[in-house]
Amino acid sequence: MKETVQGEMQQKASWVAGIDIGGTKTLMLLSTRDGDGQVHECRLPTQAAEQPEAFFRWLFAELKTFCEDSGCSWNQLAGVGLGFPGVILQDEGVLRNAPAFQWPEEDIRAIIAKFYNGNIVLDNDVNMAAMGEVDQGAARGHRHSVMVTVGTGIGAALVLNGELYSGQLGAAGEIGHFIAGDEGLDPGYAADGDAFGVFESITSGTGITERARNYFAAGKGSELSLIWSLAGGQAEQIEARHVFKAAESGDVAALEILELPLRYMARGLANITALLNPSVIVLGGGVAASNPTYYLNEVQARLKRYVVLPIEIVIAELGNKAGAIGALASIRRNLQRTDR
Amino acid sequence: MKETVQGEMQQKASWVAGIDIGGTKTLMLLSTRDGDGQVHECRLPTQAAEQPEAFFRWLFAELKTFCEDSGCSWNQLAGVGLGFPGVILQDEGVLRNAPAFQWPEEDIRAIIAKFYNGNIVLDNDVNMAAMGEVDQGAARGHRHSVMVTVGTGIGAALVLNGELYSGQLGAAGEIGHFIAGDEGLDPGYAADGDAFGVFESITSGTGITERARNYFAAGKGSELSLIWSLAGGQAEQIEARHVFKAAESGDVAALEILELPLRYMARGLANITALLNPSVIVLGGGVAASNPTYYLNEVQARLKRYVVLPIEIVIAELGNKAGAIGALASIRRNLQRTDR
Repeated sequence: MKETVQGEMQQKASWVAGIDIGGTKTLMLLSTRDGDGQVHECRLPTQAAEQPEAFFRWLFAELKTFCEDSGCSWNQLAGVGLGFPGVILQDEGVLRNAPAFQWPEEDIRAIIAKFYNGNIVLDNDVNMAAMGEVDQGAARGHRHSVMVTVGTGIGAALVLNGELYSGQLGAAGEIGHFIAGDEGLDPGYAADGDAFGVFESITSGTGITERARNYFAAGKGSELSLIWSLAGGQAEQIEARHVFKAAESGDVAALEILELPLRYMARGLANITALLNPSVIVLGGGVAASNPTYYLNEVQARLKRYVVLPIEIVIAELGNKAGAIGALASIRRNLQRTDR
Repeated sequence: MKETVQGEMQQKASWVAGIDIGGTKTLMLLSTRDGDGQVHECRLPTQAAEQPEAFFRWLFAELKTFCEDSGCSWNQLAGVGLGFPGVILQDEGVLRNAPAFQWPEEDIRAIIAKFYNGNIVLDNDVNMAAMGEVDQGAARGHRHSVMVTVGTGIGAALVLNGELYSGQLGAAGEIGHFIAGDEGLDPGYAADGDAFGVFESITSGTGITERARNYFAAGKGSELSLIWSLAGGQAEQIEARHVFKAAESGDVAALEILELPLRYMARGLANITALLNPSVIVLGGGVAASNPTYYLNEVQARLKRYVVLPIEIVIAELGNKAGAIGALASIRRNLQRTDR
């Protein structure tokens, strides 16, 4: 009799959900706990709210509907992994530095518990994406991997010994603050604080865009440059993707604009390799995704100069699904640990 | 009856040893497994051998004698932690990059088993020292800490979530290969490979010594400099410690020589902080130890410019006992894990 009840309970809680909560869009995945079933998918616009209670009421109502539509009743859901566009303080359950969710600093686990009482895992969306790439993507089979995301900003996520590593305040991977060269630093130490984020301002998509606009605004770029025509002949319309597209054709201005961002990115990856000796670094985010072959080749060519250890550099494979896949993988791992 | 036997067995294996094997000296510590007893200590000159078998025969014979002298019979020894002056590949049990022990690449665990069949933990001596500082020294109570050792060379050891992290090939912490500025790099990428180890060549004791000797050899230093008199008026007799001693008195040449090493060290610590968000960085090794207050203050003053996260910088407390204390702590932790 007891065995039957246990069997039923196990069967009941045989589903898991992974949710990537973005500032504008939310992606939900639903699958079996042991990962051998179909993965159901649901995309919806994020309904932001000023208070976490209103937000999670909405989110878990949507999840419940999604579950029912997928043939999973609410009490069959063993756990939910949630990725947020901000820093999660694991000990406190607090979400911080999330522009889209400027909530009071409180334990959101307690609020979530009002709507769902199963197992949950919370983490930063970049961390979840890194876990996704380890579970299903470009870092599959690697024990120690780092994912570097190059988009409007820059960040890294560390999966060491198969586990996400977040540091003391959830701030591990904030490589926008790397010091990888003298560019942008005042050698005389006259000013205060101007060294913060120099690496990000050089290597990010935003940084590349700004560099290119300044280049043309300063009259350094010829109107014959491919960048100029791609941007419709207006310096303030230039985007990083124009620069990459032009560089792929050997455009001189583009090559000059990209030299420093590529060199500094290589130095950043060299520093990651020296300190952590991972076996793979995954490049994700908009900049890497829009020009994968060019970006990868150029960074690798420069990296050789700085690195003696073997290190594989690869482009992320899962795109904007990485976060939700990672959230799914994280809750599965969490349940496995709980089982032991 | 069964309980009595188990009780006896537990009592039998109630000791642990921690051994720091240096190129010239070996330190053995012996204590109780639960850490509440006296710590016995034995120092002896390292008897190097061309083959690991001869070496471990010697080592474990010495350990046995030490045990007997300390009132611990051989079968009471539950485990031994061993720190080596080289890289340990954990999966293979291979010792590599150990100038004092240039053995064939074989699994030394199998060789050790011929002389001792209890639990063992092997690691690099710098890793063991970092674990020692976490267990008993400057990083006590910290969950995520990094120990940076500045001596003839430079290296770092990472204790993340209370566990040593060694990377894919045991090469984590090789920060001698950091790129933290343009100094020493060829901006034109003309040469190959000259970027390797620039950080070490600037920040290590050896690097500081060389910088100072070149400074005076090039006629830049006055004979009125305190460095000059400390070195007996011979450029080739100048040592890093002379430079630090002179700098503490405000010697102009010394301040000029140290500016770059201190600045680059601060940048290196900034990079560690950005990537790992530890709560403490412990500075160890000869350079930090010989001028602790000056070195710490000067590095911290420069670090402020690069780091936004809270990070404590402290000087190592355990000196040349750190490795053996860490080896003891490591075997204790290993036995605790095995018990669970």
